[in-house]
Amino acid sequence: MTDLVTTDVVIDLNADLGEGFGRWSLTDDEALLSVVTSANIACGFHAGDPTTMRRVCARAAEEGVRIGAQVSYRDLAGFGRRPMDVPAQELADEVAYQIGALDVFARAAGTRVSYVKPHGALYNRACADPEQAAAVAAGVRLAGDGLPVLGLPGSALHAAAAEAGLPVVGEAFADRTYTPEGRLVPRRLPGAVVTDPGDVVDRSVRIARRSDIADIEGGRLSLRARSLCLHGDTPGAADLAQRVRKGLEASGVRIEAFA
Amino acid sequence: MTDLVTTDVVIDLNADLGEGFGRWSLTDDEALLSVVTSANIACGFHAGDPTTMRRVCARAAEEGVRIGAQVSYRDLAGFGRRPMDVPAQELADEVAYQIGALDVFARAAGTRVSYVKPHGALYNRACADPEQAAAVAAGVRLAGDGLPVLGLPGSALHAAAAEAGLPVVGEAFADRTYTPEGRLVPRRLPGAVVTDPGDVVDRSVRIARRSDIADIEGGRLSLRARSLCLHGDTPGAADLAQRVRKGLEASGVRIEAFA
Amino acid sequence: MTDLVTTDVVIDLNADLGEGFGRWSLTDDEALLSVVTSANIACGFHAGDPTTMRRVCARAAEEGVRIGAQVSYRDLAGFGRRPMDVPAQELADEVAYQIGALDVFARAAGTRVSYVKPHGALYNRACADPEQAAAVAAGVRLAGDGLPVLGLPGSALHAAAAEAGLPVVGEAFADRTYTPEGRLVPRRLPGAVVTDPGDVVDRSVRIARRSDIADIEGGRLSLRARSLCLHGDTPGAADLAQRVRKGLEASGVRIEAFA
Amino acid sequence: MTDLVTTDVVIDLNADLGEGFGRWSLTDDEALLSVVTSANIACGFHAGDPTTMRRVCARAAEEGVRIGAQVSYRDLAGFGRRPMDVPAQELADEVAYQIGALDVFARAAGTRVSYVKPHGALYNRACADPEQAAAVAAGVRLAGDGLPVLGLPGSALHAAAAEAGLPVVGEAFADRTYTPEGRLVPRRLPGAVVTDPGDVVDRSVRIARRSDIADIEGGRLSLRARSLCLHGDTPGAADLAQRVRKGLEASGVRIEAFA
Repeated sequence: MTDLVTTDVVIDLNADLGEGFGRWSLTDDEALLSVVTSANIACGFHAGDPTTMRRVCARAAEEGVRIGAQVSYRDLAGFGRRPMDVPAQELADEVAYQIGALDVFARAAGTRVSYVKPHGALYNRACADPEQAAAVAAGVRLAGDGLPVLGLPGSALHAAAAEAGLPVVGEAFADRTYTPEGRLVPRRLPGAVVTDPGDVVDRSVRIARRSDIADIEGGRLSLRARSLCLHGDTPGAADLAQRVRKGLEASGVRIEAFA
Repeated sequence: MTDLVTTDVVIDLNADLGEGFGRWSLTDDEALLSVVTSANIACGFHAGDPTTMRRVCARAAEEGVRIGAQVSYRDLAGFGRRPMDVPAQELADEVAYQIGALDVFARAAGTRVSYVKPHGALYNRACADPEQAAAVAAGVRLAGDGLPVLGLPGSALHAAAAEAGLPVVGEAFADRTYTPEGRLVPRRLPGAVVTDPGDVVDRSVRIARRSDIADIEGGRLSLRARSLCLHGDTPGAADLAQRVRKGLEASGVRIEAFA
Repeated sequence: MTDLVTTDVVIDLNADLGEGFGRWSLTDDEALLSVVTSANIACGFHAGDPTTMRRVCARAAEEGVRIGAQVSYRDLAGFGRRPMDVPAQELADEVAYQIGALDVFARAAGTRVSYVKPHGALYNRACADPEQAAAVAAGVRLAGDGLPVLGLPGSALHAAAAEAGLPVVGEAFADRTYTPEGRLVPRRLPGAVVTDPGDVVDRSVRIARRSDIADIEGGRLSLRARSLCLHGDTPGAADLAQRVRKGLEASGVRIEAFA
Repeated sequence: MTDLVTTDVVIDLNADLGEGFGRWSLTDDEALLSVVTSANIACGFHAGDPTTMRRVCARAAEEGVRIGAQVSYRDLAGFGRRPMDVPAQELADEVAYQIGALDVFARAAGTRVSYVKPHGALYNRACADPEQAAAVAAGVRLAGDGLPVLGLPGSALHAAAAEAGLPVVGEAFADRTYTPEGRLVPRRLPGAVVTDPGDVVDRSVRIARRSDIADIEGGRLSLRARSLCLHGDTPGAADLAQRVRKGLEASGVRIEAFA
C-alpha cells in the first residue's frame, strides 16, 4: 500500500469512555484519550456518574479529543445491553436529557458535545428499527444544535437522522467481521471477533483507505466509514488501540476527527 | 394597608413543579403554572422524568413562567428528603448534571434555565452547612451562566453563592412560621404550618410589602424576600396558591419574576 | 341466575397493590384489601418500597388476604410497562430476588408469599414468549416452595410453569374484552375496556359461574378462570371492585382465595 | 508464641463479597471464598445484582463458607459510603428487604443467611448512632430468625442488637490502626492503614490470640474479636488475605466461623 498517494486518506478513531459508575470503573479512559480523536462519553443511563463525566470531558478537552454523547436506555443493571420497547416520545426525551447533562461538562471544559452515538442495545435497535431510530433522531433534534449521529452506514439510524436533517457519520469496526451484506456478524457466532492484533491493524488500514476487506464468507467487502470504533473495555484494549493508531500513521493515514 | 403607596411593591411566586416520576404524579403542574412566575422544576434526582421535564418546560414557556432547576440529592426512594453526606466535588457535579439536563428542555421550549433552587434535604442542609452550600454554589458555577440561587435570606447557601459570585434571591414562606431569629420552625413542631388560608394570604401580602409578621413567639419579624414559595403537593394547594395570588393583586402588589 | 345450584361456584379476586414508591402512591390499598382475596404486591422493581411492602403485607394478613409477589422487570421509570429482552438467567434471578424480598414482610406478618404473578410488560411477554415464560418459572422455582403462578389460562407462562412442576391458576378480566381465541384485546384498540359498571359486574358473575361471555366480535366465549383480576389504579376502581364483589355475593358465588 | 497452648484459639475470617453490579465487578470473590469462613454478600443496595448474589451464594455454600447479609443504604451511585439520615422505620424495612432478597439465594444453595453486617456508611453510622443502630437491629428482627449482628465490639450497633435480643459477634481489622480507646483511626488520617503484609499477619495472629497490639499512639490495646475482617476490593487483597490465613494456621490458630 505504501505506493499509493495518501493525501486525502483520513479517519477518525472513536471509543467508548467514562463507562464506570461511582465506585466501579471499566474503561481505561486515560490511555484511550491518547489514542482516539472522538470520545463517546457515557451519560449516566447505562454508565457514567457526574464526576466521571466531568473528569473525562476535561481530559478530552485537554487532549483535543472531540466529545460525543453516548446515549443509552435507562438500564444501569443491564449496562444498556437489554433491548427495551421504550415509547418513542419517552425515548426521544431520554436521549435529549443525556445530551444536555453531558453538555454541561463539555462546556465547563471549554468545548461542546459535538456528536451523538447510541450505546449497546439502543445502537443495535436503532440501526434496525425505524421507530426507535426516529425517536433517537428526534431526541438529538430536541437537544438542539443539529448534532451529527455516529453509526452504522446504511442503517435505519442513519436514515432517520438524515430524514430529521441531521448529519450522519459512518463508522466501521476493524475487530469485528461482517456479512456479505455489510452487517456485523453477531458476537455470539463463531468468527465474529477478529482476535489477531496484526489482522486488526491491517483491516483498520484497509478500511481507512477504502480498500476492501474479507467478509465472513471470504468474499470482498467495501466499507465506507469516516470513523473506526475501537474497544476499550477489555484487557489489552488500550494497547490494541495504540497499535491500530500507529499502524494507521505508519501507512500514511491522517487521523482526524470528523467535522 | 390600602393607604400605602404601592408603586414598587413587587414579588415573585415560586413553586415546585414536575415532581412526578414515570407513572406517578404529584404536583398539579397545570394549575400552578397559571399562578406562579417561577417554576422550580424537578430534574430527575428526587423526581422528574425526562418526559415530564420537557412537558412542564414547554408549558412554563407558554405561560411566561421562569424555569428554575430544582436540584436534589440522588434519592428517588426518599424523594430527596433524606440528608446525605455527599463529598463536595460529587455534589457539585450532581448539581451541574441536573442543571444541564433541564436546560436542554428549557432551550427546546425557547427559553433557558434561569435560576437554581435546591430541593428538600439539600435545601435545608445547604442553608445551614457551609461545605454543602459551597458545593451547591460550585455546581451552579460549573454549569456556567452565573445563575441566581433562590433560597433562604441570610443562609449559608446565600453566603456561599455570593462568595462564588452568583446572584442570590431570597424567598419566604407564607404558610410556615418563623423563629424570632428568622429561621423556619421545623415541620415536626406544633405551629410550624399556617393552616388558615386567610392568614396565609394576609402574611403573603405583609411579606410582599416588607411589613413585619408575627414570629412563633408572638414577636414581630421582618423578612426580606423577593419571592414567595407556594406549595403544590398537598390537596387544595393549587387553590390556596390561587388565593394568595389574588390577595396580592387585590392589595396592589405587582407579581413578577426576579430579573 | 338465582335458580341455579351454587354449591361449588367459587372465585378468587385479585388486584395489584402497593404500587406506590416512596413519596408517590397509586393504588387504594386500604379499600381494595376489603374487597379482594389475593393481593399482588409490588416488590420494588416497578413500584413498591420496603416500607409500603411491609405495611401492605401486614394489612393483608390482618384482613386474611393472600399475599402474592407481583414481580416485574427492573424499571421504575417505566413502571414495568416497557418490554425488555432480559437474558433468561438474569430474569430468573430477578424474579427470585423479588419473591424473597417480599416474603420477609409476609413472614413478619405471620404468613408467607403464596403465589406469583408477573406485572405489566413481563406478564404480557411471559404469556406469549416461551423463553421469558421459562425464565419466570425458573425464578419461581429458585425461590423454592413451588409457588403457584397466576396468569392467563393457556398462556406460554402457564405452559412453562406446568413444565417446571409449578401449579398454575388461571385468571380472567371482567373489564376487558377478548378475541374469539380467548386473547385479551390490546388496550390501544377500541372496545378493549368494558366501561359500564353493570356490564363488568354481569361479566364477573358469568365468568365465575363458567357461563359464556360475549367476545369482541359478538360470539360466545367460555373462560376457565379460578380468579378475577380487579384493577385498582384508576379513579373509581375501588368502588367498581366493591360492586363486583357485592354482585358476585348476591348471585351466590363464594369468594375465596385459591388453595 | 509457639510455646503457648492453642487448644481454644479460634477466629472467623470475614470479607465483603459480591460487590459488583451488572457489568461491573470489584471483589475477587473466587479467591476470597478459598480464604474466608464468612462471606458478607452485597444485597443490591450499594452493590450486588441478583445474578451475582445467586452465584456467590452458590459458591459460598460449595466452599462451606457462611453467608451473611451485607446490608446498606440504598445508594448505588455512592457505593453506600455516603451517610444518610434515613428515618428509623424506613431503614429497618430496607434492612429486612435486603436480608430477605439474599436469603432466597442462600436457600437455593441449600443454606441460609446466618448473620448480618452493615456496609460502609451504615456500618460507621450504626456503630456510633444509637437511633440508626436500633433501626438496623429492628430490621434484623423483622427479618426473623434472630440473626447475629457482626460489628465493632462495644459499638452502639452491638448495644442495640443486644437490646433487641440478637446475638452479637465482634470483629477486628488487622490492617487498620486503633486509637487508645479502641476506635478505628479514620482512613483519611496518616497511619490509619497497616500496609506492611508481615505486620498485618502478625497483628492478625495477636488479635486471634487475644494478645495486645500497638495502638496508634504506641500504647498497648487488647481487642476482643471473634472475627477478623479482611479486605477484598484492592489489588493484592486476595493475596494478603491468603497470607493472613496461612499465618494464622501456622501459629496454631483454628479458623472457623462463629456459631
